[in-house]
Amino acid sequence: MIVVLKHGVQRDKREQLIHWLEKQGLRIHISEGEYQTVLGLIGDTTHIDMDLVDSLEIVDSVKRVTEPFKCCNRKFHPEDMVVEVGDVKIGGGHFVLIAGPCSVESEEQIVTVAAAVKAAGAKILRGGAFKPRTSPYDFSGLKATGLELLRIARKETGLPIVTELMDVRDLELFADVDIIQVGARNMQNFDLLRELGRTDKPILLKRGLANTLKELLMSAEYIMSSGNERVILCERGIRTFTDYTRNTLDLSAVPMLHELTHLPVIVDPSHATGIARIVPNMALAGTAAGADGIMIEVHNDPINALCDGAQSLRPEEYAALTEKIFAVRKVVAP
Amino acid sequence: MIVVLKHGVQRDKREQLIHWLEKQGLRIHISEGEYQTVLGLIGDTTHIDMDLVDSLEIVDSVKRVTEPFKCCNRKFHPEDMVVEVGDVKIGGGHFVLIAGPCSVESEEQIVTVAAAVKAAGAKILRGGAFKPRTSPYDFSGLKATGLELLRIARKETGLPIVTELMDVRDLELFADVDIIQVGARNMQNFDLLRELGRTDKPILLKRGLANTLKELLMSAEYIMSSGNERVILCERGIRTFTDYTRNTLDLSAVPMLHELTHLPVIVDPSHATGIARIVPNMALAGTAAGADGIMIEVHNDPINALCDGAQSLRPEEYAALTEKIFAVRKVVAP
Amino acid sequence: MIVVLKHGVQRDKREQLIHWLEKQGLRIHISEGEYQTVLGLIGDTTHIDMDLVDSLEIVDSVKRVTEPFKCCNRKFHPEDMVVEVGDVKIGGGHFVLIAGPCSVESEEQIVTVAAAVKAAGAKILRGGAFKPRTSPYDFSGLKATGLELLRIARKETGLPIVTELMDVRDLELFADVDIIQVGARNMQNFDLLRELGRTDKPILLKRGLANTLKELLMSAEYIMSSGNERVILCERGIRTFTDYTRNTLDLSAVPMLHELTHLPVIVDPSHATGIARIVPNMALAGTAAGADGIMIEVHNDPINALCDGAQSLRPEEYAALTEKIFAVRKVVAP
Amino acid sequence: MIVVLKHGVQRDKREQLIHWLEKQGLRIHISEGEYQTVLGLIGDTTHIDMDLVDSLEIVDSVKRVTEPFKCCNRKFHPEDMVVEVGDVKIGGGHFVLIAGPCSVESEEQIVTVAAAVKAAGAKILRGGAFKPRTSPYDFSGLKATGLELLRIARKETGLPIVTELMDVRDLELFADVDIIQVGARNMQNFDLLRELGRTDKPILLKRGLANTLKELLMSAEYIMSSGNERVILCERGIRTFTDYTRNTLDLSAVPMLHELTHLPVIVDPSHATGIARIVPNMALAGTAAGADGIMIEVHNDPINALCDGAQSLRPEEYAALTEKIFAVRKVVAP
Repeated sequence: MIVVLKHGVQRDKREQLIHWLEKQGLRIHISEGEYQTVLGLIGDTTHIDMDLVDSLEIVDSVKRVTEPFKCCNRKFHPEDMVVEVGDVKIGGGHFVLIAGPCSVESEEQIVTVAAAVKAAGAKILRGGAFKPRTSPYDFSGLKATGLELLRIARKETGLPIVTELMDVRDLELFADVDIIQVGARNMQNFDLLRELGRTDKPILLKRGLANTLKELLMSAEYIMSSGNERVILCERGIRTFTDYTRNTLDLSAVPMLHELTHLPVIVDPSHATGIARIVPNMALAGTAAGADGIMIEVHNDPINALCDGAQSLRPEEYAALTEKIFAVRKVVAP
Repeated sequence: MIVVLKHGVQRDKREQLIHWLEKQGLRIHISEGEYQTVLGLIGDTTHIDMDLVDSLEIVDSVKRVTEPFKCCNRKFHPEDMVVEVGDVKIGGGHFVLIAGPCSVESEEQIVTVAAAVKAAGAKILRGGAFKPRTSPYDFSGLKATGLELLRIARKETGLPIVTELMDVRDLELFADVDIIQVGARNMQNFDLLRELGRTDKPILLKRGLANTLKELLMSAEYIMSSGNERVILCERGIRTFTDYTRNTLDLSAVPMLHELTHLPVIVDPSHATGIARIVPNMALAGTAAGADGIMIEVHNDPINALCDGAQSLRPEEYAALTEKIFAVRKVVAP
Repeated sequence: MIVVLKHGVQRDKREQLIHWLEKQGLRIHISEGEYQTVLGLIGDTTHIDMDLVDSLEIVDSVKRVTEPFKCCNRKFHPEDMVVEVGDVKIGGGHFVLIAGPCSVESEEQIVTVAAAVKAAGAKILRGGAFKPRTSPYDFSGLKATGLELLRIARKETGLPIVTELMDVRDLELFADVDIIQVGARNMQNFDLLRELGRTDKPILLKRGLANTLKELLMSAEYIMSSGNERVILCERGIRTFTDYTRNTLDLSAVPMLHELTHLPVIVDPSHATGIARIVPNMALAGTAAGADGIMIEVHNDPINALCDGAQSLRPEEYAALTEKIFAVRKVVAP
Repeated sequence: MIVVLKHGVQRDKREQLIHWLEKQGLRIHISEGEYQTVLGLIGDTTHIDMDLVDSLEIVDSVKRVTEPFKCCNRKFHPEDMVVEVGDVKIGGGHFVLIAGPCSVESEEQIVTVAAAVKAAGAKILRGGAFKPRTSPYDFSGLKATGLELLRIARKETGLPIVTELMDVRDLELFADVDIIQVGARNMQNFDLLRELGRTDKPILLKRGLANTLKELLMSAEYIMSSGNERVILCERGIRTFTDYTRNTLDLSAVPMLHELTHLPVIVDPSHATGIARIVPNMALAGTAAGADGIMIEVHNDPINALCDGAQSLRPEEYAALTEKIFAVRKVVAP
């Protein structure tokens, strides 16, 4: 960490700061410029509150030179992590399609959709049993029953399942779920993250609507530092001023995350746009950007879907799309 | 709700939509324009998925004409709600100062700060026992011990206490807390909101970093529709592209929320700016904008504060500020 | 336009509004609901100030049902526009690569780069002669000399040239430029747009950093309604809260614009990201999203580039990329 | 400037960078850490392209330690600048109200409003003659006639006038305007800024919708480095994701700008919110935040205003407000 002091600070205030920093276990390297004095902090600065130091009257600015994340930092883990779920692999060159309905609604629905997406090339089935909804009056999922229906669809098709956990008290119900999803709204539910870090399941961690890549990685760090290294990151759109689309899919996150971390990165174009008819464009774009997987909502009857039908593809649309996805993938990762 | 159909839609698709809407229990009023057909939906549209309808191929756009929130809607509750905590009142003309350290650190610290802010005019003591931190390596609060120290400070000063609950499993520990705070990161932790709706405690609900006013009100609605009407809203800054300040304090939220809801609205300038030296400006601005209260971080030793010292005022700075706050309040609410 | 009145408005205020609207040449269709009265405005509402009406005390909300743009509206021009520059075509299935250095620096530089990008498949040469720079102390282009060097490069390679005009007073200097670019910062320089509408040159109009798609289309409308229909739209990133990348490339703009307008839409991944090493990912993503062209900065000596070297590819990197771009294009537009 | 190199960079690449930096006239101070090498750049780094350096493969990150602006930098001009217009002073403790209609419409209108706002305490008259409008079909001002009407109103009331210049070719028409306004959309119209820097008139520079404080200061720097030091900065709202208000008034910009620059800072709550009924709240908040002036739209007949009536106060509302503004000002600047 580098601390730039203001011009002409009093010697005693400066000494007081240096003394305080040394008490935190750091060595201080002082470099006097014409207009500024720069302090180089040597040692483990992970625990130093950068904002606090930055706010001191004598400090002009502060800069971290090492990232505050370790477990998920590519610097320390140059090899791609490959997350395995049964015999499905994600990351490190393994590209995977995840698909299914927004909400699990009935046995017929989930089994039909599961079979259809499998036929189109999907390797993992998604489906919401516990649904976060902005309004308390909206349908919030079939809950335990929904999980049961997912299990049936898994049995029928052999596809492993991924579904969202919202409340840490429901963890037991997820005992035989294959991948647990943390939704965008819970990306900084730190107690939930820590608890998931104590499980042995892969975690699909969605980026929050207003969260930076660094914050996403710090949330992955919560899970990994608690003992569970199998984290899959998911870009699903950020909140901006845009009209027409619900959120803005930030695809530059894909190559940037690949630079910063060794974890797999997938893209969810359905939630990002909220508009089924542009999902194919954004799914192909995410693939071309280098994502390790694409997660798409598919529903056999979008108009009657209880939730988010607006962003779901029909099975035949999905099948037409996956062909193109695989073709684009072949171009970018031959 | 109003549904505008695209120009030249086929009659059977249109009939299909009208039929589906009628099945949801609505009456449909059709108005044919030169270029568009407009459907007026009459009845309770709270449960209609606006995004779904908007996404249909034959639909041009959709507009709600009634807000999807009821319990917190001023239309149905024209009188300001006054939240009472012991003999302290918030809202409906009752203006209240809340102050205290970011984190509770020791008995001496919390009791000293509590006495100081009380002397300066604060009526409620804030202090974090459970702290949400972006990094798993940062100090996350004294937890149960912190709550115990808050109780001691309450006993010493008579000030009711407000503190943040992060994990629904800790609810029992909060049994004798006076006001439970929901942090910005948990504003859409819907299970937590529902659970708090079953308590009999006032809830201080902070606006999320990327949440609209409508979403804030929908989260209040979660608490209120579960049975607990005593919700205090808090504007604490939103995430934007700005440099220099941590977040952007959206003070126009204060008069807009007063128009939309009868709930009290307070402002937290400490978290919004992250910079102690501009907290006074923004506290005065929040008061002038019409807030029902101002919540400020005060610490007797900011440089050594374990958390967020950068944004804390010293007690003497706070005392100088409260005088001005009261003077501004007198101007705007004589 | 639809105007929703508040519940229980006085009859005389309502009559006053209706009277005022009728004076603007509209017919009013009144529909009384249980809780609201809805006014349907029939006729040409292009000139009605929606914000003014929305702000009236008796008005709850307002909704446009027709877009305020006409010349660039796909509703009235269902066929894709194809912009022709010499024998190069853009749009309507014609995909085109544009490339060249950020700034024109010397004859050797621009001719070398032009030849290299032509060899790699580019059909149009870009290069800045007049450069918008945030700081008055930064290099702002070779100006007239830069234009002269572009002409030389055009003569040598046969590539038509596109370059940015910042000041309407320089228009004469651009007399034999093939495509005039309007930069993001000038997207709402309305006098400039109107003046360009009086020329007979194709205009490459970049989306402003904080502008919605509707605003971009309204700016195209300025040019087109002044007589010049040949407008090419360009998505080049919007300003958000993101860390790591300079801006956020909003690729969902590509399919959305294609829905809203018949104009060609290209993508500029260089300015959007500001990071050369992720430009290939985003160029491929833009192609996959359906763009009609990709504009990329290429420099033969990025480290010494006077401007924006950080985001420029070297010619050999560009050549490796274009091969993949063409392969992806073949997948999405077979 | 500080340049942090990546871990384990090759010696020759490092030497190459150092050599290049030295060629730019800088001395380099090398500090070797355990994990990083940090280069301290000593000398005038104003001309160094920080993004370019940051983008180099061997560079981890870059940090400026001196701001790239000089003329408007408080470090070099510790005393507040007081801008004088006739006998009206702005800044340095001089607080001033500016008011008038959005657009000048008729002699009667502008004279009536001018007299009314003068009576209420305004010292400067605002009024638009050239109006930037998103749509080419909207009323864009009376132009030269509007300027003539402003002159009449000035003669009648003695109030100096401020009005917006959009096109540098109209500069002559503004010869006897007292303060020239640069609108938000032109904040980075660099040719216009430079031209205004050659005049001897005070410039009211509005912050762009998506511009940082640093960019605002760099635009002021364009004017000042061209010779005209009399710049007044204006916060008028930034674009965010918010619903309900048009923009988000960023009042923390007021104290932050006062820290960074010696120029006066005023606030325009009318454009920021777009809603007349919350303008008073935000005007008071801006005053409380420490602004050197408040600019408000006042219209004698908002419902018929040709432009932006939604955000205009009536004269009697304005008079009631100014009393409170002066009272709040007395509290914050006794």
